[in-house]
Amino acid sequence: MAELPRIISVDDHVVEPPTVWTDRLPSRYQDVCPRVVRAPMGEITFVGGKLTVAPGSQGAPTDWWYYEELRRPLLRLDSAVGVPRDEVTMRGITYEEMRPGSYQVGPRLEDMDANHTEASLCFPTFPRFCGQTFSEASDKELALLCVRAYNDWMVEEWCGPEAGGRLIPLTLVPLWDVELAAAEVRRNAERGVRAVCFSEIPPFLGLPSVHDPHQYWDPFFRACEETGTVVNMHIGSSSKMPSTSADAPPAVGSTLTHSNATYSMVDYLFSGVLVRFPRLQLAYAEGQIGWIPYILERADTVWEENRGWGGVAERVPEPPSVYFRRQITGCFFDDAHGLRSVDEIGVDNITYESDYPHSDSTWPRTREIAEEQMKDLTDDQRERIVRGNAIRLYGLDLG
Amino acid sequence: MAELPRIISVDDHVVEPPTVWTDRLPSRYQDVCPRVVRAPMGEITFVGGKLTVAPGSQGAPTDWWYYEELRRPLLRLDSAVGVPRDEVTMRGITYEEMRPGSYQVGPRLEDMDANHTEASLCFPTFPRFCGQTFSEASDKELALLCVRAYNDWMVEEWCGPEAGGRLIPLTLVPLWDVELAAAEVRRNAERGVRAVCFSEIPPFLGLPSVHDPHQYWDPFFRACEETGTVVNMHIGSSSKMPSTSADAPPAVGSTLTHSNATYSMVDYLFSGVLVRFPRLQLAYAEGQIGWIPYILERADTVWEENRGWGGVAERVPEPPSVYFRRQITGCFFDDAHGLRSVDEIGVDNITYESDYPHSDSTWPRTREIAEEQMKDLTDDQRERIVRGNAIRLYGLDLG
Repeated sequence: MAELPRIISVDDHVVEPPTVWTDRLPSRYQDVCPRVVRAPMGEITFVGGKLTVAPGSQGAPTDWWYYEELRRPLLRLDSAVGVPRDEVTMRGITYEEMRPGSYQVGPRLEDMDANHTEASLCFPTFPRFCGQTFSEASDKELALLCVRAYNDWMVEEWCGPEAGGRLIPLTLVPLWDVELAAAEVRRNAERGVRAVCFSEIPPFLGLPSVHDPHQYWDPFFRACEETGTVVNMHIGSSSKMPSTSADAPPAVGSTLTHSNATYSMVDYLFSGVLVRFPRLQLAYAEGQIGWIPYILERADTVWEENRGWGGVAERVPEPPSVYFRRQITGCFFDDAHGLRSVDEIGVDNITYESDYPHSDSTWPRTREIAEEQMKDLTDDQRERIVRGNAIRLYGLDLG
Repeated sequence: MAELPRIISVDDHVVEPPTVWTDRLPSRYQDVCPRVVRAPMGEITFVGGKLTVAPGSQGAPTDWWYYEELRRPLLRLDSAVGVPRDEVTMRGITYEEMRPGSYQVGPRLEDMDANHTEASLCFPTFPRFCGQTFSEASDKELALLCVRAYNDWMVEEWCGPEAGGRLIPLTLVPLWDVELAAAEVRRNAERGVRAVCFSEIPPFLGLPSVHDPHQYWDPFFRACEETGTVVNMHIGSSSKMPSTSADAPPAVGSTLTHSNATYSMVDYLFSGVLVRFPRLQLAYAEGQIGWIPYILERADTVWEENRGWGGVAERVPEPPSVYFRRQITGCFFDDAHGLRSVDEIGVDNITYESDYPHSDSTWPRTREIAEEQMKDLTDDQRERIVRGNAIRLYGLDLG
């Protein structure tokens, strides 16, 4: 067996440095745009899955993002690598308490070197997985500037010259206006960006669905297809997490984190979006892959049984699995059943992730874990999964 | 390869004959209890996943169930076997338009004979999959009598002497009162019943969850455990079907029908119910099985990673898959990936179904389909799946 090729992780995270927005927004927005304030930690509670927390008069010093009325502390969960698992809780932290690779390019590259990782695609933290923070803001003029400032920072600094092509730019769009979103995709594509964040299930954010009879999202999808921009959907990008009841323990939701990705994938397969945009590429992040064989088989069966009278065949002329193989990629970090099912999923539809710096991260043991997980795969299968598929999908200049 | 053993189908359906309730309820309830009235079909529409329909002044003659204010037509979908697929629509029908095996014992046994099927467990139609029709009714005194009348008919007539032990009694409980539910389980167990219907996700019906801190459902589970009564949960028994948006085509929901069973199984695995009641048996109907390997692996991982600090270990001392193997059974009729994963699921945790007389039914080709689906299994595996596991689970006297 050949040595494991250097890994390309397509699901990591960056904690934005304090001056991303204050460096870039006009002076009139300095007191309202996202900025970092150090203040004591107050009470922190989750109500209805939503953080309700504000700085208190006592408690450990904590760095807070202030933005309009929002007060959002940096949390141990935002940057958990290198921290003993027992200490990974909901408590607030400062930048100094984080591993520097969480928010600085140089240390991040060093941590990647220590983890056999050549390149990394990083999702945002303060903006949330597809920029929901900005789509929920009151001042949409400011919010648009914030989205653009994030993208400028992402391209010019996080993925700037210091990164040497090893940090892959992943951008945001203003979710609340599809024409602005399409324009932002094109603006970033002109400077080489090939990846954008999107929501698994837009209706959960109060937005039109991918089944919208007026094909609301088509300008966005068209911009992505025409520019070769991959649509990246992280678990949690529907804001609503899977739940059975308010009193279910957190382990229930953790076991079901794939569900919104599953729902989303089925949505796309029957939506016609992948028919209208045959070169559009969708990538699911942190959804794992072991559930995909069942879904593809079931979707093909439902398609076959209903195409005669359900209007399915007009919208989706070929079996759903055809579109999956052509246009969808799943991603995993721990999924033995998925790896036993590589041939059923399609070896070209699978990528790998280390989830740095979150609590689930396999850093700094990603290489050993990958070697152990994939010991029954061929060299060629391993190469595609940990590296080759990502190079092709994101058009990386890594050879 | 040996001949396929005669099949025991653990998920079929019975359309209740017109006089189930009028034969059994006191005269004062004759005008309000469930009864059949023939009237023209009116407009039939689905609003918010709910049938809104009433008899009209014109349209095809249709048999309607009248119960309190409810007007529910018999539908082609209720009894679709023997009908060309193109004709299986939401239209109303009469009893005479149904295949007699849908509601008569003798013809049912003949249809089972024609389908290599020895025994069958049948879910209700008018009461819905766990008796939601009665739990939604206004007059709960009447509703309780209706539940008991259904069970009396189920035991004395549907599974009476004519059935010769080939129709397995499956009963209802009054979902709205856990003490009455436990009493009904015991009443039926005294006459040999070993199976009861329940909801996958009670909170979706406005009822307490299986995580309820006061362990609301324990009297019901205790009655089931003490009497060896299997808890049967059919897809749809949460009333709410999986959905991503109001404008998603029906194929999306059809592909995702397993989701509530998945959610329910994860609920039970982390609830502690299977710890408190180690002989309780849960059986999922029509949920298929191909998604189970991913869920078991993921649940065990979440359990392992969280048992130190999430309070999981106190509630669930062993990995969730241990409880699955001991106390949960999944059921399928079309699931190639599930069959490739038999060893990961556990061959003793799988049963088979023909779904007679619904539109998905494999009748009258269940034998050929089973032989084709299971051609890569051993004789012993096939025997357990199509027959042996059901005999053990339901304590059937079939040898």
